[in-house]
Amino acid sequence: MEPHFERVAIIGVGLIGGSLGLALRERRLARTVAVYSRTPATRQRAVERGAADLAADSPEACVAGADLVYLATPVAAIVPTLARLVPHLRPGCLVTDAGSSKAEVVQQAEELALGQATFVGGHPMAGSADMGIEAARADLFDGMSYVVTPTARTLPEAADRVARLAAALGSRVYTMAPGDHDQTVAAVSHLPHLLAWSLMLLAEERRAAGQPVYELAAGSWSSATRVAAGGAQLWREILVSNRAAVLAAVADFETALGGLKVALRDDPELLQQALETARRLKLEHPGKP
Amino acid sequence: MEPHFERVAIIGVGLIGGSLGLALRERRLARTVAVYSRTPATRQRAVERGAADLAADSPEACVAGADLVYLATPVAAIVPTLARLVPHLRPGCLVTDAGSSKAEVVQQAEELALGQATFVGGHPMAGSADMGIEAARADLFDGMSYVVTPTARTLPEAADRVARLAAALGSRVYTMAPGDHDQTVAAVSHLPHLLAWSLMLLAEERRAAGQPVYELAAGSWSSATRVAAGGAQLWREILVSNRAAVLAAVADFETALGGLKVALRDDPELLQQALETARRLKLEHPGKP
Repeated sequence: MEPHFERVAIIGVGLIGGSLGLALRERRLARTVAVYSRTPATRQRAVERGAADLAADSPEACVAGADLVYLATPVAAIVPTLARLVPHLRPGCLVTDAGSSKAEVVQQAEELALGQATFVGGHPMAGSADMGIEAARADLFDGMSYVVTPTARTLPEAADRVARLAAALGSRVYTMAPGDHDQTVAAVSHLPHLLAWSLMLLAEERRAAGQPVYELAAGSWSSATRVAAGGAQLWREILVSNRAAVLAAVADFETALGGLKVALRDDPELLQQALETARRLKLEHPGKP
Repeated sequence: MEPHFERVAIIGVGLIGGSLGLALRERRLARTVAVYSRTPATRQRAVERGAADLAADSPEACVAGADLVYLATPVAAIVPTLARLVPHLRPGCLVTDAGSSKAEVVQQAEELALGQATFVGGHPMAGSADMGIEAARADLFDGMSYVVTPTARTLPEAADRVARLAAALGSRVYTMAPGDHDQTVAAVSHLPHLLAWSLMLLAEERRAAGQPVYELAAGSWSSATRVAAGGAQLWREILVSNRAAVLAAVADFETALGGLKVALRDDPELLQQALETARRLKLEHPGKP
């Protein structure tokens, strides 16, 4: 059954918050959608784009009377924002977030005394190099993965309500522990970003040494660096909030790359076998188009 | 001025050789295009697809009377093929190749006694995960980079003729020493392939440990692994033929990644600065769409 909310308060209306507002309104999942952004022009633009019924002048005004509060701020702002809003949450209010890492956020959120409100962590895996309210679209969540991260302290019906919201947005919903989420996205999201940035920094070194790297850059390079234009502050926050898992993924990656390096140096037959294995895996698991 | 050839012999009619035949015929750059492939069905298919006027039963028959011989075999077969064909080349014949690495091929080709024929190395950077004659298309070279790699021993007019051929195919032509080419493509083509394979092998390890990596794979992962489905034997040959430059690129990459790792661990402000630099570089140098 699709969930229905009386009043949804979206704090932060960039790509994710704006798209959520558009989707909630298009799919009639909420009677009223209120938004708040620190930048007045942004919250007005959210209303103009149809992502909200109203823009509030403060986060407190935004969440007043809300039965769902959706925290779509940069990851470092999620817990401070929630801490500030706790006294203003209506009894029974469900709070969820869209942070790209979960263990730290969920642990800190659970340490707040939320009273009769309840918090469930979530991660819509619908990021994009295009950011901001202008990039928002109602179908952003359609077909994407959406992870819900309850803990032993989470009310099962609250987690279920967030999962049903995600499903109503068209997402494929996965429920897992915050730490499991973080280790997994470290390997298949945060790590590829680090590789993209590393490739750019290496290319620039080579260019400075006189090599025509950008002129000869192959399609493989362009694809691998596609996400390098992501926001630096946004990504700093994501990586720092998921530091341990990211460092572990980098270490595992270095081991994998090191194995190919040794095989290239010493054992081409072994190299070919590894490439064949990787090829088969990619054909089985192509990922997003 | 566009070059014109009486008879072009293309040895190897996969993606590159087949596309060359299609382009030569469409652009009327040759009176006759002859092809040879070890597999009879492939060379017949090249004729059916319009990539050649005729299919020869042997490489020797293919190059008979040719004023241009284009070696489009896998990289490990280039020099052995040329060695076998030397006695059958017509005086004044121009020979070029399409190998993805150049120093080893060019050095070995120059050590052959070519008589009155002349060899110029080349690399059309138009590879694709789609391989074989079925993927060939007349506009493959259009807008792509094409590197010509003469040495001190190359006749200038021969290098110029290959460069004019590449330009007539619609490519942007770069002329550089074989070793410079190899170092550059190691960084912006061979390295991203190694990263793609490493990401796949890491993902599979994580999957085997129970993590839902393929379910949560982000767009960044899908892009970075796009080329992982490339042919294992083809890529083994390319990497082995460019081993020293590839190992140097991997080492430089490990240094760049290691720098980001240390910054993430110890200095988030420095991390953000590095990400901002990488972001600016990517916006300036987006690469292929």
